[in-house]
Amino acid sequence: MAVYTPVSADDLAAFLAGYDVGAAVSFKGIAEGVENSNFLLETTRGRFILTLYEKRVDAGDLPWFLALMGHLAAKGLPVPGPVTDARGEVLQALNGRPACLIEFLPGVSVSEATPEAAREVGAALGQMHRALADFTAPRPNALGPASWPPLAARCDGRLGEIDAALPDAVARGLAAAAEWPADLPQSTIHADLFPDNVLMLDGRVTGLIDFYFACTDARAYDVAVTHAAWCFSADGRQFFPERAAGLMRCYLAEVDLTAAERAALPRLAAGAALRFTLTRAFDWLNTPADALVTRKDPMAFARRLTWYLAATPEMMGG
Amino acid sequence: MAVYTPVSADDLAAFLAGYDVGAAVSFKGIAEGVENSNFLLETTRGRFILTLYEKRVDAGDLPWFLALMGHLAAKGLPVPGPVTDARGEVLQALNGRPACLIEFLPGVSVSEATPEAAREVGAALGQMHRALADFTAPRPNALGPASWPPLAARCDGRLGEIDAALPDAVARGLAAAAEWPADLPQSTIHADLFPDNVLMLDGRVTGLIDFYFACTDARAYDVAVTHAAWCFSADGRQFFPERAAGLMRCYLAEVDLTAAERAALPRLAAGAALRFTLTRAFDWLNTPADALVTRKDPMAFARRLTWYLAATPEMMGG
Repeated sequence: MAVYTPVSADDLAAFLAGYDVGAAVSFKGIAEGVENSNFLLETTRGRFILTLYEKRVDAGDLPWFLALMGHLAAKGLPVPGPVTDARGEVLQALNGRPACLIEFLPGVSVSEATPEAAREVGAALGQMHRALADFTAPRPNALGPASWPPLAARCDGRLGEIDAALPDAVARGLAAAAEWPADLPQSTIHADLFPDNVLMLDGRVTGLIDFYFACTDARAYDVAVTHAAWCFSADGRQFFPERAAGLMRCYLAEVDLTAAERAALPRLAAGAALRFTLTRAFDWLNTPADALVTRKDPMAFARRLTWYLAATPEMMGG
Repeated sequence: MAVYTPVSADDLAAFLAGYDVGAAVSFKGIAEGVENSNFLLETTRGRFILTLYEKRVDAGDLPWFLALMGHLAAKGLPVPGPVTDARGEVLQALNGRPACLIEFLPGVSVSEATPEAAREVGAALGQMHRALADFTAPRPNALGPASWPPLAARCDGRLGEIDAALPDAVARGLAAAAEWPADLPQSTIHADLFPDNVLMLDGRVTGLIDFYFACTDARAYDVAVTHAAWCFSADGRQFFPERAAGLMRCYLAEVDLTAAERAALPRLAAGAALRFTLTRAFDWLNTPADALVTRKDPMAFARRLTWYLAATPEMMGG
């Protein structure tokens, strides 16, 4: 939520000289995305996001991410497409960082996951999966099930410092994930479609953003992540069946999940909840309490994890 | 350089209901201003900055700051004016913070203080001082000369940890400031007109921003601050006479400084350099080296201080 690498007016002018997008009219660093430096740029021709990729993003993955975004934008999905420069390139270097100029999309990040918004995001997720049927370049999921036991181990037995209930919830989640559903249909997935990665306007989805966790994995796992992100109160204490039913119904109107996928949904969602519990717990233990960055409570997802471990596909709305 | 207080889409919609500015089309937290949370808002009617004032700003001072900005905007200066709500109010509360909706101004923050830019900012400063002749509500300068000895004392004898040359530079600056020029013409002053607080477009000043250090003080002290901010290399090692000559000439074309003011310029500028040396040194000693906030080098202004202590008004371009 910060700008890590400054870009001066002169840096910007030199960068834009390689594009056919006009001259800068306004340029502001924006507090969007945890991982990168982002700027909102207005030129005489339009509006754009300029992203500088910081160390936590592997530069080797960037061509894949940008190809994915360009693929979805070209198919008419509300995804910000990378802008090509005069030489036809999208990936650049600026101030020592890989950088890309990206389309600006209108809309406001979703803050309250209403039933209406959950229906819209279910449909958008389904449309995205359909549009990705012919995007077949693979990228492994670095935060998939194989990563969870070592990630838990890196928390050094300190989960109980965060909450007394956390060690047991994680242990039960790891045990359940050890029997991971196999042979489910694969897709390129977003893997992080939380409300703050969805822009809406007048009740419609106008933007799906932040594809930097996207990867190849079970299509139904993306549904599970989105379900976990949208169907509970922020603290995970309350499940909202109407949001879940709407999200699933609108997704299933786009994508016909197999019986095996539907049956696997609770296990996949428990895994998704475990993944966010663990990454939040690791960040919590490694972020000073007084840091400017707001720490996200791992218990919000440990409670979801516990709920999914006792859930049926029907309880999930699937 | 961060958003400290989040504002959700629902918070925003409720806030905008009190205004006649249309509905939100886009809303992004921006990394502008060290002290406050700022958002760039586009509505169906126009563009605005939404500012939430964080703890470092005294809420009691806000009516004065907003009146100042409104005064300058009303006189046609390129200053963002506060927007009044349907009840005629500018100062609001949002998420537990004082808040204000402010006009958006185009332009890009100045990164390279070229001679041309220095001339433009000299003229803009002079026009601002002229426009403030009838803005007479006083606000004391909390960072004036009386504050410097106690601020130096709060650095706890640790200035040498930053740079071996710093303790001596500060001591000489404090000694010089002890004989502070008295009875100079007073004005409301910006007191922080650094390049990053000036927006330009096509070589013209389109915005003077960040008035939250503004106060009542010697008019020539504002010239001195601006001179120190614009006429050196960033690290303070090199003085640029052409920038200084242009800045002073264009300022003097707007405002006829008295002989006493011109004579006092080197002393005032040494004081200005001391003020930024001390606040940077205090922040440096109280910010962890690994914090996300970039620490600003106090030596960049200690070097300017040393230069001004040996300068004449003529050397300054005055």
